[in-house]
Amino acid sequence: MKLTVTQENLNKALSIVSRIAGSRTPLPILNNILIKTENNRLLLAATNLEIAITVFIGTKIEKEGSLTIPAKLISEFVNNLPKNNIEIENKNLHINIKSGMYESTINGLPADEFPNLPEINEKKAVVFKIPTNVIKKAISQTVVAASHDTTRPMLTGAYLHTYKNELYITATDGYRLAERQITGIKIKSEVDAIVPVSSLQEVVRIIPDDQGEVEILIDENQVRFRVNDIELTSKLIDATYVDYRQLIPGSLDINVTINKEEFTRITKVASLFARESAGGITIKTDPDKKTVSIHSVASQLGENTSSATADEVVGEGSITLNSRYLLEALNSVDGENVEFGFNGKLSPSVLSNADETNSNYQHIIMPLKS
Amino acid sequence: MKLTVTQENLNKALSIVSRIAGSRTPLPILNNILIKTENNRLLLAATNLEIAITVFIGTKIEKEGSLTIPAKLISEFVNNLPKNNIEIENKNLHINIKSGMYESTINGLPADEFPNLPEINEKKAVVFKIPTNVIKKAISQTVVAASHDTTRPMLTGAYLHTYKNELYITATDGYRLAERQITGIKIKSEVDAIVPVSSLQEVVRIIPDDQGEVEILIDENQVRFRVNDIELTSKLIDATYVDYRQLIPGSLDINVTINKEEFTRITKVASLFARESAGGITIKTDPDKKTVSIHSVASQLGENTSSATADEVVGEGSITLNSRYLLEALNSVDGENVEFGFNGKLSPSVLSNADETNSNYQHIIMPLKS
Repeated sequence: MKLTVTQENLNKALSIVSRIAGSRTPLPILNNILIKTENNRLLLAATNLEIAITVFIGTKIEKEGSLTIPAKLISEFVNNLPKNNIEIENKNLHINIKSGMYESTINGLPADEFPNLPEINEKKAVVFKIPTNVIKKAISQTVVAASHDTTRPMLTGAYLHTYKNELYITATDGYRLAERQITGIKIKSEVDAIVPVSSLQEVVRIIPDDQGEVEILIDENQVRFRVNDIELTSKLIDATYVDYRQLIPGSLDINVTINKEEFTRITKVASLFARESAGGITIKTDPDKKTVSIHSVASQLGENTSSATADEVVGEGSITLNSRYLLEALNSVDGENVEFGFNGKLSPSVLSNADETNSNYQHIIMPLKS
Repeated sequence: MKLTVTQENLNKALSIVSRIAGSRTPLPILNNILIKTENNRLLLAATNLEIAITVFIGTKIEKEGSLTIPAKLISEFVNNLPKNNIEIENKNLHINIKSGMYESTINGLPADEFPNLPEINEKKAVVFKIPTNVIKKAISQTVVAASHDTTRPMLTGAYLHTYKNELYITATDGYRLAERQITGIKIKSEVDAIVPVSSLQEVVRIIPDDQGEVEILIDENQVRFRVNDIELTSKLIDATYVDYRQLIPGSLDINVTINKEEFTRITKVASLFARESAGGITIKTDPDKKTVSIHSVASQLGENTSSATADEVVGEGSITLNSRYLLEALNSVDGENVEFGFNGKLSPSVLSNADETNSNYQHIIMPLKS
């Protein structure tokens, strides 16, 4: 292998692939990234066997070749080089990297020991495109509600699916649920895939902040996200997702429309006094005073009542929620004003954007028994 | 106690005192801060028995009183309140804090259970003043070289002292040493105090970024830093500081003047290959080529040689240093260009600011045996 690339291009590509290399792996070769010339481009790839990421860099190849080298070392090395051209040449399993007065030899491992990169049969896959900013936002709004409990793998994923011809992404840990509708996407066939949250978090990380689109390909076992010269392929979680729609209340007898910032502030203040009670805070609506008040008690420390004036209050009632869940929901919902409602102490509460007639996002939180 | 304060003033004061409360303490009352009316001001104080911090807030007192309340809860609560007036009133050991629609009751402990705040006999103390930006800078430039090893308490402090009528601050862990001269300070008597680094770090944190001065008072056992309405009092370390001046080489046979950024960059790159060798990197001067080059080897991973052109190179030689120490020294020294010199493989190296004729700062690093 012999070629020249710019520090900017190589550094960007390494920062994209290297993070998944060597994370929690018993196989030494997974600490490495694969470097390979291919059709006058340089391919960089890393995998943790769940996820594989590949990036192509356009360059002039003087001599073909391939090998694998330690991801952490090469990324940190290239990241610290000046913004000049970098010459790369390998002699067997040693790679020589030179840039001006900087020169390193790094010891690698053979390319053929690297796991095969996952392939997707593009003809049989469901293929559709989502604008980059839309998918990033939809992922970060929903994955917060997913579970970290690996004994129930299904809930550690987000459910990307079509329902009545519309695309949705949903996550739940059994105590709360976030659902985001993604409108205006052309899809020819049904989508029904549970994508690991860890993969989606990598997608958010590696997708550039630009005006482009992410192409998504889904086959029976895998999903691929493709944008520009970057591809991330992940295994799907093999399960039938919980039939969550029955959990979402249709109408809300008690509901308020309130400024999101104010609601967040009184929730935050109340949460300080809720540490002893497993985060429990009690939210109360008062249609006469047009207020929402939150009460929390810490028998040792003291107690708090914080209130805020709402734009609209329908119905009088109270519900006890985990304050962290409510704060995370408020942090995920769009809009300057939010709608918050419930049907009574023991039924789920719903938070949505009050600035849109039909909020494309709803966040459901199950009550605590108070 | 009954009084009104602004959220801004109370929040600022709490953020200053609360951090030292409840840090590693077996005494529950040390989790609390003392709140006390005194001469028409509100006193807030916290201590960890090593350090005590007090802040005064000017306010109108309706009713005198004092008690202690949990530092973490009150600070977080006040921090989240809107920028309005806050009414504070206590009933026995419960304090009621009200701001608009926010109301909390916090349970406290009696003020007389709080440790006595340290006193300094100001008439007998050595007193001098240092501009805030100068002392902040001098502390952060030196404490990096102090030891974390509590079995040698002396080295966990910084040595604030006069030498030939000039004020110095020095820290060393036995492997490296940082000395900063503080010029232009009027001092009537000798200063000779070892101040715990943890106290100095708090001083840096709480001193405001303004054009003012910090007043320093030192008695036999304590030092007090006073700025505006804030006072930090710390115990001194009871020891005779190591006679370090004999360790500093007088002249440097081998020395280079080099751009600090370039020297930092080649050190950083070399350090990546030095992890296997306890951070060891070998620095070599070449007066003919006018270069400094750094070589490092990781038998498993590979090796690196990075060079930079220097402005001046006197003498040919090499020395092996811990790369982290060199990076921290480069990060602490002022100047666009630095002077780096040594007398041979086995004697200490010295880094200083090359832009000043007499650098007020020098950082000594002992060599590794290579």
